[in-house]
Amino acid sequence: MLSRSFLATEDWTDEAIVALLDEAAALKADPRIPPKLHGKTLALIFFDPSLRTRTSFEVAIAKEGGHAVVLEPGKGSWAIETRRGVVMDGDKVEHMIEAARVLGRYVDALGVRSFPKESSWVEARRDAVVRGFAEHAGVPVINLESARRHPCQGLADAMTLRERLGRDLARKRFVLTWAWHPKALPVAVPSSAAIVAATVGMDVTIAHPPGFELDADDLVMVKTIAARRGGRVEVVHDLDAAVEGAHAVYAKSWGSLGAFGDAPREAELRQGLKYWIVDEDRMRSTDGGGGIFMHCLPVRRGVEVTDGVLDGAWSAAVDEAENRLHVQRALLRRLLGGSA
Amino acid sequence: MLSRSFLATEDWTDEAIVALLDEAAALKADPRIPPKLHGKTLALIFFDPSLRTRTSFEVAIAKEGGHAVVLEPGKGSWAIETRRGVVMDGDKVEHMIEAARVLGRYVDALGVRSFPKESSWVEARRDAVVRGFAEHAGVPVINLESARRHPCQGLADAMTLRERLGRDLARKRFVLTWAWHPKALPVAVPSSAAIVAATVGMDVTIAHPPGFELDADDLVMVKTIAARRGGRVEVVHDLDAAVEGAHAVYAKSWGSLGAFGDAPREAELRQGLKYWIVDEDRMRSTDGGGGIFMHCLPVRRGVEVTDGVLDGAWSAAVDEAENRLHVQRALLRRLLGGSA
Amino acid sequence: MLSRSFLATEDWTDEAIVALLDEAAALKADPRIPPKLHGKTLALIFFDPSLRTRTSFEVAIAKEGGHAVVLEPGKGSWAIETRRGVVMDGDKVEHMIEAARVLGRYVDALGVRSFPKESSWVEARRDAVVRGFAEHAGVPVINLESARRHPCQGLADAMTLRERLGRDLARKRFVLTWAWHPKALPVAVPSSAAIVAATVGMDVTIAHPPGFELDADDLVMVKTIAARRGGRVEVVHDLDAAVEGAHAVYAKSWGSLGAFGDAPREAELRQGLKYWIVDEDRMRSTDGGGGIFMHCLPVRRGVEVTDGVLDGAWSAAVDEAENRLHVQRALLRRLLGGSA
Repeated sequence: MLSRSFLATEDWTDEAIVALLDEAAALKADPRIPPKLHGKTLALIFFDPSLRTRTSFEVAIAKEGGHAVVLEPGKGSWAIETRRGVVMDGDKVEHMIEAARVLGRYVDALGVRSFPKESSWVEARRDAVVRGFAEHAGVPVINLESARRHPCQGLADAMTLRERLGRDLARKRFVLTWAWHPKALPVAVPSSAAIVAATVGMDVTIAHPPGFELDADDLVMVKTIAARRGGRVEVVHDLDAAVEGAHAVYAKSWGSLGAFGDAPREAELRQGLKYWIVDEDRMRSTDGGGGIFMHCLPVRRGVEVTDGVLDGAWSAAVDEAENRLHVQRALLRRLLGGSA
Repeated sequence: MLSRSFLATEDWTDEAIVALLDEAAALKADPRIPPKLHGKTLALIFFDPSLRTRTSFEVAIAKEGGHAVVLEPGKGSWAIETRRGVVMDGDKVEHMIEAARVLGRYVDALGVRSFPKESSWVEARRDAVVRGFAEHAGVPVINLESARRHPCQGLADAMTLRERLGRDLARKRFVLTWAWHPKALPVAVPSSAAIVAATVGMDVTIAHPPGFELDADDLVMVKTIAARRGGRVEVVHDLDAAVEGAHAVYAKSWGSLGAFGDAPREAELRQGLKYWIVDEDRMRSTDGGGGIFMHCLPVRRGVEVTDGVLDGAWSAAVDEAENRLHVQRALLRRLLGGSA
Repeated sequence: MLSRSFLATEDWTDEAIVALLDEAAALKADPRIPPKLHGKTLALIFFDPSLRTRTSFEVAIAKEGGHAVVLEPGKGSWAIETRRGVVMDGDKVEHMIEAARVLGRYVDALGVRSFPKESSWVEARRDAVVRGFAEHAGVPVINLESARRHPCQGLADAMTLRERLGRDLARKRFVLTWAWHPKALPVAVPSSAAIVAATVGMDVTIAHPPGFELDADDLVMVKTIAARRGGRVEVVHDLDAAVEGAHAVYAKSWGSLGAFGDAPREAELRQGLKYWIVDEDRMRSTDGGGGIFMHCLPVRRGVEVTDGVLDGAWSAAVDEAENRLHVQRALLRRLLGGSA
């Protein structure tokens, strides 16, 4: 069943991703396209909280005539076991195997959000919960953000790039930049953004301070896709140089994987890095002074980006959020709608 | 966009309020009126918990063929910033501006509930959260109860008055009375009830112990509307005298605005006031002994009102709650249903 | 209104239960059966958390064209009073009477889950919350699990027995066995399972260690129904002897009613009882080695049952969970769908 799931954009062919983006654009342009999913149901399992993902998926399936059941075990006491062969005499009341099998009998697809809770990145990067659900559910599973990927955000980012910069993105420069933030955030969004930018054929620059490298396998993935699509990839440590002439500046904070789970070392690493913020001067140095500013939201104003950028014409952040709705509608129609 | 929102009954014309009440009555009387909101969506944002408001809105839009997304950030960890121009390096992860803009892209209308959390009434009375959402959402915003107003409750109250006392309410006496309660409750409901009673043309008596005055601007609003509609307004401190001959007795507890946020002073103020309860004797002294008892619920039995009143023929409290459903259906049809 | 509610399978006639099971089987077999509940609404009130019950009911009514409102007061602060005639000046903000009356005005049926919270079994066994809602709601109430009964689980169990063992279940042996578990769990599921097995005509064996007797009235109920249906009932203390030749082995842990609310005594009682687990050897001793294993889920692997049984051909546990959806659809069609 893994092949019918959507755990990462790179699990699908480039053509399939482009087809999704085309359908999303069509759905956005024409509200009269008839719903396709009457009587279909989707369960959204949030082990971690959500605002945009939950709302956009609930609205997406409602607009298609179906219904989403929202489960938030993270708010309650539903502790599930993910390890095989253990004697469950502790605090875990249910095994993921049963949870996945049962939910797969009730609904036509499952969405699963599970942020890393493991103490080491070696463990966390396996994405055990999302992959376990995909293995056992018997229906398509959609990754709503795991330790490694946030592919629905990636789709919305790609849709926004095509809207703002045109469908021919070859040779256009996409800059993913680290930003300062008081907390160590997950890497799923920046990894997914870099991958999808390479998938739509852009040149990708990843800017971050030393010590904030993305997962090495994910960087290889970006480079592999870029090579296939004719784009270039570079990793730099100078934000000012990176944004110069950029067509898109994607700001995102993330934690050091080398200091994963080690808060004091993480805090030490980011000392003196508050100048990693996207401000008006940096946006003026982009392509013709009119590059677009991107962010997955939620964003801390005055921390990752200035008010002036976010409230100015540069910002595509609210469009990115809106496009979640359209790409997810297209995704659901593809996964649940029978023959296209 | 403010003009398309519904933040307070007095923001709409008297004629528009009466038209809503007429449509609500028609919807209640005839279940065969066809749904009007297929494919429409509504987000309900509860910064504070809800039973009646949430259920009645979810059912209202479901009966119209649409869908409500219920967000309860108050149960989770979604702390939003409402101030402009601040550096968000504290515990607030999202600014209201982005929250409102994004949700406004997903749905056709937003409902927002936000009780006062500020430390002073001067701050709380600005209704920053609800008004901020209305400013930035780009779609109509419905006030689900703010520090100052609970206009959907007001509509349901007005509908109930018309059902029980007839459509010609001129010269009928509406008594809003303070009631003892162990906690200091918000003033949104009593202010909204007094305003709407004036709007439907009743004479309004507000009875409370000294120290429990409503917000001065809100009292002016009640008097202004009453003057326009030909009604009278009086404020008294004697419950027994107030209810004598009344057509409707609306019981509600609220906190002293002078002691806002000052629990010890509030507790001192309400010492010895437990006789502020609506009991059978007081209801027998109403108009012909058959005045109606009103309460927005939830109600503490034996505290604000006796079992005998609540379980007797006087009580219109459950009708008021039911009418939330009908007035909100009418409101949603008006806001989202295109031309009437 | 009690007669229209569904609080326990034995409140309905044996014929009505069989008719429900027949309709559930038809709905499962043919997804083209048209929905019957357009515009109907259901409120599901979970004073205690739920995964399967909530999802299966939300999907059931969605498939019928209606909508479920899910209320989880247990997650928030909604403390309701169930006693009559009290002065509510403590921490309870609402009386069950108002909650039931109001919700009954909004929706076409109510589901209520309320686990025992009383300190004594004598109090808990009255099922005050679920029965109170049924008394005051004015619409049908469905028991989503109370102290005494879980009748929707019972229906799903009966449906699974008929699927796996055939519709003629007379003389087939149903073994309900206690299992060790680190916590004292409720007795609603085992009582309901024994009752429904008797209702479909099976011979019922109840196996448990001394001190873990079911409620005496419930055991009388099982025997009364079995006598009527021509089945036999026995209570034994030897698990190995009980499962020998069984057609169905239903494992479930439950707490000692004699030690109700007394954790130290309960812990003492279950010392040395970890051998009460269903394993492969025990399943091999069932009828032809091919008896079915049943469990209501969630289940603790390696504690109540071994991985080998749960992942083997014996297990009907996931089917039981799936069948919740089908029996509840049939139930909703019966309660809300007008004439059959």
